[in-house]
Amino acid sequence: MRAMVDVSRRAFLGTLGIAGAFAGGGAAGAALGLWGSPSPAAAGGSSAQRIPFRGPHQAGITTPAQDRLVFSAFDVNAAAFDQLRAVLDRWTEAAEAMTAGRPVGPGDDDPAAPPSDTGEALGLPPSRLTITIGYGPSLFAHPALRPRRPAALKPLPPFPGDRLDPLRSGGDIAVQACADDPQVAFHAVRNLARIGRGVVTTRWVQLGFGRTSSTTADQQTPRNLMGFKDGTRNIRADETEALDRYVWIGTESDQPWLVGGTFLVVRRIRMLIEAWDRDSLQDQEQVIGRFKVSGAPLTGRDEFDPPDFSATCGGEPVIPRDAHIRLASAEENDGVRMLRRGYSFTDGMDGTTGELDAGLFFISFHKDPEIFVSIQRKLATSDALREYLVHTGSGLYVCPPGLKGGQTWGAQLFG
Amino acid sequence: MRAMVDVSRRAFLGTLGIAGAFAGGGAAGAALGLWGSPSPAAAGGSSAQRIPFRGPHQAGITTPAQDRLVFSAFDVNAAAFDQLRAVLDRWTEAAEAMTAGRPVGPGDDDPAAPPSDTGEALGLPPSRLTITIGYGPSLFAHPALRPRRPAALKPLPPFPGDRLDPLRSGGDIAVQACADDPQVAFHAVRNLARIGRGVVTTRWVQLGFGRTSSTTADQQTPRNLMGFKDGTRNIRADETEALDRYVWIGTESDQPWLVGGTFLVVRRIRMLIEAWDRDSLQDQEQVIGRFKVSGAPLTGRDEFDPPDFSATCGGEPVIPRDAHIRLASAEENDGVRMLRRGYSFTDGMDGTTGELDAGLFFISFHKDPEIFVSIQRKLATSDALREYLVHTGSGLYVCPPGLKGGQTWGAQLFG
Repeated sequence: MRAMVDVSRRAFLGTLGIAGAFAGGGAAGAALGLWGSPSPAAAGGSSAQRIPFRGPHQAGITTPAQDRLVFSAFDVNAAAFDQLRAVLDRWTEAAEAMTAGRPVGPGDDDPAAPPSDTGEALGLPPSRLTITIGYGPSLFAHPALRPRRPAALKPLPPFPGDRLDPLRSGGDIAVQACADDPQVAFHAVRNLARIGRGVVTTRWVQLGFGRTSSTTADQQTPRNLMGFKDGTRNIRADETEALDRYVWIGTESDQPWLVGGTFLVVRRIRMLIEAWDRDSLQDQEQVIGRFKVSGAPLTGRDEFDPPDFSATCGGEPVIPRDAHIRLASAEENDGVRMLRRGYSFTDGMDGTTGELDAGLFFISFHKDPEIFVSIQRKLATSDALREYLVHTGSGLYVCPPGLKGGQTWGAQLFG
Repeated sequence: MRAMVDVSRRAFLGTLGIAGAFAGGGAAGAALGLWGSPSPAAAGGSSAQRIPFRGPHQAGITTPAQDRLVFSAFDVNAAAFDQLRAVLDRWTEAAEAMTAGRPVGPGDDDPAAPPSDTGEALGLPPSRLTITIGYGPSLFAHPALRPRRPAALKPLPPFPGDRLDPLRSGGDIAVQACADDPQVAFHAVRNLARIGRGVVTTRWVQLGFGRTSSTTADQQTPRNLMGFKDGTRNIRADETEALDRYVWIGTESDQPWLVGGTFLVVRRIRMLIEAWDRDSLQDQEQVIGRFKVSGAPLTGRDEFDPPDFSATCGGEPVIPRDAHIRLASAEENDGVRMLRRGYSFTDGMDGTTGELDAGLFFISFHKDPEIFVSIQRKLATSDALREYLVHTGSGLYVCPPGLKGGQTWGAQLFG
């Protein structure tokens, strides 16, 4: 830490009157208000768009995927547990401000105090920022929260081939910040961490990126780092029946406060892309079950043609028995569908292998985490793709429903 | 690696005629040609823009900064040095294709062979991709290249406070890929690494991001993760006199092949943002020498007001003696100016401190690396900002000039 500001510096600022711009709430508010005023040029694009913070469900779940992700898991410091509710209340206020494109805090910063907002998003538009919160099983170990825990919220079981890094897994609280600008998403998580200092500690952080299609009218299915379109059969935001059936926690829940919420699964899936890149095009397509360029299933011509898993040729299934899209399909999983929200990641080199540490940060939402467990158990044992994947991080959290007007995350969690 | 494709799969593809789409150069070219045809929606934005690959100088130096960076340093495997020229020639061809928005390779992929392009950028526009190459001092240790080494190309000296990670420093060859889409930039570096396999090995990779202003008409100075505008006094692309004076290697060079080139300095500068965030607004502004919201120097009202380093108040300089902008200024460095191209980075948590590993990936270009050395020596000993910074990576490379029509990087380097 730097020493206190010396008197001459303060005296100078006072004398020249420059500090005055920050002295009164009104003036400072006006200056910081820059942030809420996207430039005219930006206003035409999606970056100026605001996603409503409140509603029946949290934003960032069915919201069309923004281009960038900052995911952060926090642990609550046991000795400061009694301050958690206050932190969650301050987080609510900050999240509501940031998603609206406003800075954190009242805007009447005392120049002798740290700024209430860290500033790197000043002048940037809302960029479709969403901030989605989830709570891990470990959070409910505290006696005050034990009665609020849904029975289905327990750590995911181990899967064959998992090589999980505990520092990339779990956590008491998860925050998923998505935005079309990485600086806006980073700013959001950083400011929440700052507000929570002393009460919560950042356990791990993961950055992700997608293709930039969402900045255009053209919503093509993004490609993952294997070069294949990923998400063709995802549940779409307007499929309300499927969402009610497979995603939103319903009134049959053992925890009424969670109705309208969902379970959030994250898996950091490293791709062994060097091995993949050496594989033949034909083999890659057999492993996935789709054509690489078009994204069509091996039984079709267009991306959205339904795969015909019963089609055979010479006695062999056209879409192989161990093809990824077959094993993950609703057809082979009692009709079950998943809402996924994947982001690519690259975290530099793996020092132990000299290969790129890159892959897919898999995010999915489920009414019941058992949906994920049963499909993942099958993929981990039989998927042809498993040879090119290593799961290195994992988390399960329950996301409460959206906040009503005036409600805070603290009040919602503690009831 | 997956086993060979079994016969039934091949037979199936042959029978159904689907493989036929990939069998002939023409058809496959048409399919892969998707990549070069940005969607109409995207065509209106900057993402559709192509930056010319050839010219008197390399692209990516004075090119207005794209939003995303993937920087990669490679080492040449000594045993395969005789193949380096061929790799550089293939890199040239691939870089020219990718910056034009085309896939790598001829497009007549044999389905039984690995695809010539990894595919994750299929369907994405050029996104202003630039690929800039530089050569480190270690490359010229090889007898074949010793006569081509400029005398000024030697490792940077150690600076006080450096905590350099050798796995984030140096390297025989540097590749800077910048684009408005991170997937496009990543795709570029990944495909070069793939082409070079066996001859070059990736030593380290750094991802970076900036604000998205360049996707709009609004070219504001970006803010770094300290929340301050960064780059206000940067040399602009149209200041040709300053570029000739401080950036481009001139005819006085000891290596005529490098005229029109430049020296590339990279520094991975971690910011101790937790400490910074606890500092008062006033003190932050004194450390930098500018106001946080407006970006104006402490002696001015607007961002582009020239700082008045001689102004005093009560006997003390208004812009403190140790303020960052004073020590780095042309006024205090014999008029010398720098061309900078910084990107923010966040690489998750630092396991040893539990703090965010985030900061600025500093990139600068100089006619003579001594320009950087003399300023950095001053900053490392006197800059008020040094308390909040740790340099964790470093590199110096010489960038050759741009390629003439038909010329390759291999021919240019080996002469």
